[in-house]
Order: sequence, then C-alpha cells, then structure tokens
Amino acid sequence: MTLLVALSGWDAQTWVDRFAALLPDRNVVALGEPFDRREVHYAVTWKHPPGSLAGLPNLAAIFSLGAGVDHLMGDDRLPDVPIVRVVDEDLTGRMSEYVVMHALMHLRQQPRYMAQQRRGVWEDDRSQPAAHEVRVGVMGLGVLGIDAARKLRMMGFDVAGWSRSPKDIDDFPTFAGEAGLDAFLGRTDILVVLLPLTDATQGILDYELLSKLPRDGRLGGPVVINAGRGGLQNEPDILRALDDGKLKAASLDVFVEEPLPPDSPLWKREEILITPHNAALSAPDAIAAQIADQIRKVESGGTLRNLVDRARGY
Amino acid sequence: MTLLVALSGWDAQTWVDRFAALLPDRNVVALGEPFDRREVHYAVTWKHPPGSLAGLPNLAAIFSLGAGVDHLMGDDRLPDVPIVRVVDEDLTGRMSEYVVMHALMHLRQQPRYMAQQRRGVWEDDRSQPAAHEVRVGVMGLGVLGIDAARKLRMMGFDVAGWSRSPKDIDDFPTFAGEAGLDAFLGRTDILVVLLPLTDATQGILDYELLSKLPRDGRLGGPVVINAGRGGLQNEPDILRALDDGKLKAASLDVFVEEPLPPDSPLWKREEILITPHNAALSAPDAIAAQIADQIRKVESGGTLRNLVDRARGY
Ligand SMILES: NC(=O)c1ccc[n+]([C@@H]2O[C@H](COP(=O)([O-])OP(=O)(O)OC[C@H]3O[C@@H](n4cnc5c(N)ncnc54)[C@H](OP(=O)(O)O)[C@@H]3O)[C@@H](O)[C@H]2O)c1
Ligand SMILES: NC(=O)c1ccc[n+]([C@@H]2O[C@H](COP(=O)([O-])OP(=O)(O)OC[C@H]3O[C@@H](n4cnc5c(N)ncnc54)[C@H](OP(=O)(O)O)[C@@H]3O)[C@@H](O)[C@H]2O)c1
Repeated sequence: MTLLVALSGWDAQTWVDRFAALLPDRNVVALGEPFDRREVHYAVTWKHPPGSLAGLPNLAAIFSLGAGVDHLMGDDRLPDVPIVRVVDEDLTGRMSEYVVMHALMHLRQQPRYMAQQRRGVWEDDRSQPAAHEVRVGVMGLGVLGIDAARKLRMMGFDVAGWSRSPKDIDDFPTFAGEAGLDAFLGRTDILVVLLPLTDATQGILDYELLSKLPRDGRLGGPVVINAGRGGLQNEPDILRALDDGKLKAASLDVFVEEPLPPDSPLWKREEILITPHNAALSAPDAIAAQIADQIRKVESGGTLRNLVDRARGY
Repeated sequence: MTLLVALSGWDAQTWVDRFAALLPDRNVVALGEPFDRREVHYAVTWKHPPGSLAGLPNLAAIFSLGAGVDHLMGDDRLPDVPIVRVVDEDLTGRMSEYVVMHALMHLRQQPRYMAQQRRGVWEDDRSQPAAHEVRVGVMGLGVLGIDAARKLRMMGFDVAGWSRSPKDIDDFPTFAGEAGLDAFLGRTDILVVLLPLTDATQGILDYELLSKLPRDGRLGGPVVINAGRGGLQNEPDILRALDDGKLKAASLDVFVEEPLPPDSPLWKREEILITPHNAALSAPDAIAAQIADQIRKVESGGTLRNLVDRARGY
C-alpha cells in the first residue's frame, strides 16, 4: 500500500516525513520519485500537476491538504474516487480570528489611527458607530462561515448569512440562493466572503454585486473582506468600485494570481488591507494526523468523513 | 432644583441642552453661568475645576460622565455625597471591540503585514500561533474587564484575570491582590489593563512588573494593552522594557499627559499602537438619559445605582 504525496508550492519532503512517521507500515512517496502505480491506494494533494493522479488503478481516496478543493477540480483527468477535505478546529478558529480582526479594524478605523500615529496626530472621530450599529453579511455558511458569523455576532455586530441551500440558524437570519441574494446584499455594510471557488461562484464579487451594497450605512460605505479564494473576485471591478465610491474599503487575503504580482495596483491602495493568503494556515501536524486517522479507520471498515460533493464542486 | 454641569475639555453647552431636554422641569446650568448655589441638588462632571463643587449646601449626588472617576478623586474639596459613575452596555461593548481587536492584531502580526504591503512584499510567517496557544491576562475584572475577558476567551485565547478581591468566575481562572500578582503575570503573554486609576494602581505598569511577564511565550515576547488610564503606566519604563527586550509590543489608548505631547518618544515607536483615548467613547445621549433616569428614580424614593466606593477610589 502506497500513499502518494502530490504537491506543488509546498515542500513535499516534510509531508512525506510526517506521513511516514504516522503510518510506519506504509510506503510514502512524493510525486517524481519512482513508485509502482498499482500500489497507490491514497493520494495527498495540494495543487498537484493536472493528470498526475490518472492511471492509478487502485486509488481509493484523494485527500486535500486544505479546506478548499478548487485546486483539484480543474483537473479533467481526476480519477472518480472520494475526495476528502480538511475540517479542523484549529484552522476554523484561525479563520475567525482573521475575519473578526478585519471587521473590527474597519469598524474602528484602525488604518486611519495608524496613519495618524505616523504623522504624530492626536485626533478622534466622535461619530464612531458601535458594532451593533453595523450590519455584517457572511457569504458562505459552511464550517468557516458559521463560526465566523457566530463570533462576529458575539462581538456585537448585526449579522446575517447567505448560502446555496436554505438554513435555519438560531443566532442570526439567513438568506439563500439567487433569490435571496439582493435582499442579503441590501442589508450588508461589511461583506465577509467565505465561499468555495466553483463554477457557480467564480467572479461573483464583481461591480454589479458590489453596487448592490448600501452606501448609507454607519461606516460611510460598504467594506468587503474576502478570505475565500481569489477567483471569487474581479479585481479590476473592485478597483473601479473603490474609485467611484461604490466601495469604501476591502481586506483581501486571496488573489486571482498568488503571490500577488509586484505590479498589481492593489498593493498601493490605502483602502485595501492585503495579507499573503494566510488567513487560516493549516497546522501541518494536526492535518497529517487527521488524514492518517481516516486511512486507518476506512481500512478497518469505517467510512470517510468530510467528503466533497463533486457535482457541486465543494 | 438645579442641575449643575461642571466640565472641562468637553463642550458644556451640548450637555446642558441634552439635560434641559430630558428634565424640562429643572434648571440646568453650566459652571461659569450665574446660579443660586443653594438650589444645586445634582452635579454632572467631567474633569471639573477642583473646588468648584464646594459650597453647594444641598448637593445630593455627583454624576461622572465617564466610567472612570479618577478625575473626581484629585479634588480634596469634593463634597461628601454619593458619586455615580457610568455603566453602559454600549460603552462596555466598545471597550471589548478595542481590546479584542488589539489582541488579535498582535497575535496575527497585523502591523508587520501592513508594513510589508507598503513595500509590496508577499511573505508569510508559517510559525504563526493560534489564539489558544496564547495566554491573555486581564488586569481589572470589573464591568469592562469581565466582558473583555469573556470575548477574548470566545475568540480562543487562553484567558485569566486579576482583581483586588477574589472572584469565582466559571469561564476562566482568576488571581487576586498582591499575593496573586506574580503567578498571574507569570502566565501572561498579552497583558490587558482595565484597572481604575487609584492610589493603589498609580504607576503599576512599571519596569519591575513588565519584567515579570514571560519572554518565552508563543508571541516571542510579552505585549501590553492599556485602555484603563495613562496614570497606570510608567512611560519611560515601557520604553526601557521595549529597548532591552523585556516587552515586545504595546497598544496604548491612554497616556500620562493627553493629548500625547508631540515630542513624546512613544509616537515614533513601531512596536506601539497609539489611539487617542477613544477605546470606549460614551454615547452622550444614552448617558444623559441614564443620569436623568436616576435623578427621577431617586426623587421618587428609589436608590442610586453604580455608586463609587470613595475609600477604594473606584
Ligand atoms: N484564505 C485562507 O487561508 C483559507 C483557508 C481555508 C479555507 N479557505 C476557503 O474557504 C472556503 C470555505 O470553507 P468551508 O470549510 O467553510 O467550506 P464549506 O463547509 O464547504 O462551506 C461552503 C459554504 O459556501 C456555500 N456555497 C457554496 N456554493 C455556493 C453558491 N453557489 N451560492 C451560495 N452559497 C454557496 C455553501 O452553501 P450550502 O451550505 O448550501 O452548501 C456553504 O455554506 C474554502 O472553500 C476555501 O476556498 C480559505
Ligand atoms: N480608554 C477608555 O476609553 C476608557 C473608557 C471607559 C473606562 N476606562 C477605564 O476603565 C476602568 C475600568 O472600568 P470598569 O467599569 O471595569 O471599572 P470597575 O467595574 O470599577 O472595575 C474595576 C476593576 O479593577 C479592580 N481593581 C481596582 N483596584 C485594584 C487593585 N488595587 N488591585 C487589583 N485590582 C484592582 C477591581 O477589583 P474588585 O473587583 O476586587 O473591586 C475591579 O475588578 C475605568 O476606571 C476607567 O479608568 C477607559
């Protein structure tokens, strides 16, 4: 039984070492090394080279090293086996740290006070609203969206959520699908985006959508926080919306091209807070342990958890 | 019956107008205008000129326009009548916004990412701890400290608290008094200061105290967040502790002298996040309504709430 580690943009060897330590009775190899294709039962992936998982006749499951699986879906030769993604308490908590911190920074005008400090200016804005006067809308009510929404609510924000299928959540109102989108956007001062990247969500943050956010909220204009995927956002449209006042500010952790190219005009915009796709880094040891655990469970007759629905794409 | 408005550093007339509207059957005057001293039953104060409340034979209560009352205690001719302070849900929520945001900014190294953005640098720190790996200690478990501690805990931080008298709180461990101080400091990576300024707390944040914070925590050095009062901190000691690595960073909302003088060396320190004493601004209408309400209640036989203990000084 071989576990194949198929990554790019990440150090494969440290992952091979981790799995070898956790599954001492198995053969763990990185793509590029020699191995017997018939022996591969499991693949662990992050942005694998498209096609590299084809021709593995005994492949039983593919594990994504991240919560998102859009990196797998672009491969039209991906074998038709179960796909398992990461669901991890530590990762979920980190994402909510990012979301709550950025929502508070926009609420409290923290970039303004930091700029004032650099100029030695003592000046405060006595019209500052409190969190309960600001409406936050969370797009995507999955593992990450629900936790972020709950914590935003505990901090006092007036929260609502939007997802594909209708939800019934005690803590805050929800909207669903195309039919609910305009009403959701119409009550949103801070838009938090925690959607997966799929055919249906690609480019969803465009000028038309941003124009539907109200401009008369207590923050003096809408704010977008995208920690889902860069492919969700139309970057020229975000700049246009900032230019003509449809949008006041943004926090972006993800970009169409990563690393964000040095000549991207996003870098220079003071209204945008940029982080290098680290809103919620996976803790490698915890994730490797989870995957090893699932392999052992399924081999002793259990079922895989955190499966991806391939038709939906997430 | 006259209500005397005795303020400095705040526009007295807007407060006179607010109270006149809320208590139409009373005489409301600002200090400096003519009034009959025997008619004054209540005084509303914020940094009143010392001595200006003496010689009011029928004064029945003094209301502070803020949560802190240190601005009253320095007046050795302050009449011996009940002192009422502000306790307000909106203000409490705002303070917790400030505290949680600053704790998260230090956890997530947000100033570093903002500096990187200015230089167009895409670089992340994969050793980033999660909130549950960082110990926060809240000094002062009053109205503000308890709310902040609970919300820090909900965000995942490993929270403890310290107060004068022992507390029994379900959500997190607490320490009390001089006897508990060293043990409390010894488990604190981020020290949040929400103490009142009294004879006992004056200058408490000095080099000796800062030196007791552990330097081997997951943040790479201790962090202080002071939103109590400037008089709690010894500013030269904070700079010295930053210089010799006893302290890693600080967020300061309050200062020994406010506005912070233009030549203060604090302004230029990148490790310090400065805000202009606006961690939790009172919402003036809500506070005026509360005070008017208490006046009406006490006059119809009720008792005053949110009283200050003069012996303790808070
Ligand atoms: N920046 C980072 O560091 C980082 C880290 C981890 C993850 N992420 C991103 O975060 C995303 C979300 O993670 P998760 O674990 O919360 O995913 P999840 O549990 O699969 O939840 C996805 C949510 O999005 C909703 N959704 C999907 N397609 C939709 C559509 N067309 N219209 C409306 N709603 C739609 C789903 O609706 P239903 O509930 O109706 O199914 C669900 O509520 C991941 O896919 C990944 O891209 C980013
Ligand atoms: N920056 C801003 O915008 C802003 C806004 C509002 C308020 N504040 C400041 O925040 C302070 C706290 O407000 P609050 O409403 O929470 O006050 P509070 O309800 O009176 O609570 C004060 C807390 O400090 C503790 N304490 C007092 N003296 C102590 C000592 N010598 N040793 C140890 N603990 C001591 C008290 O202990 P016990 O519980 O044992 O009594 C209590 O837990 C105010 O006094 C004010 O200065 C700042």
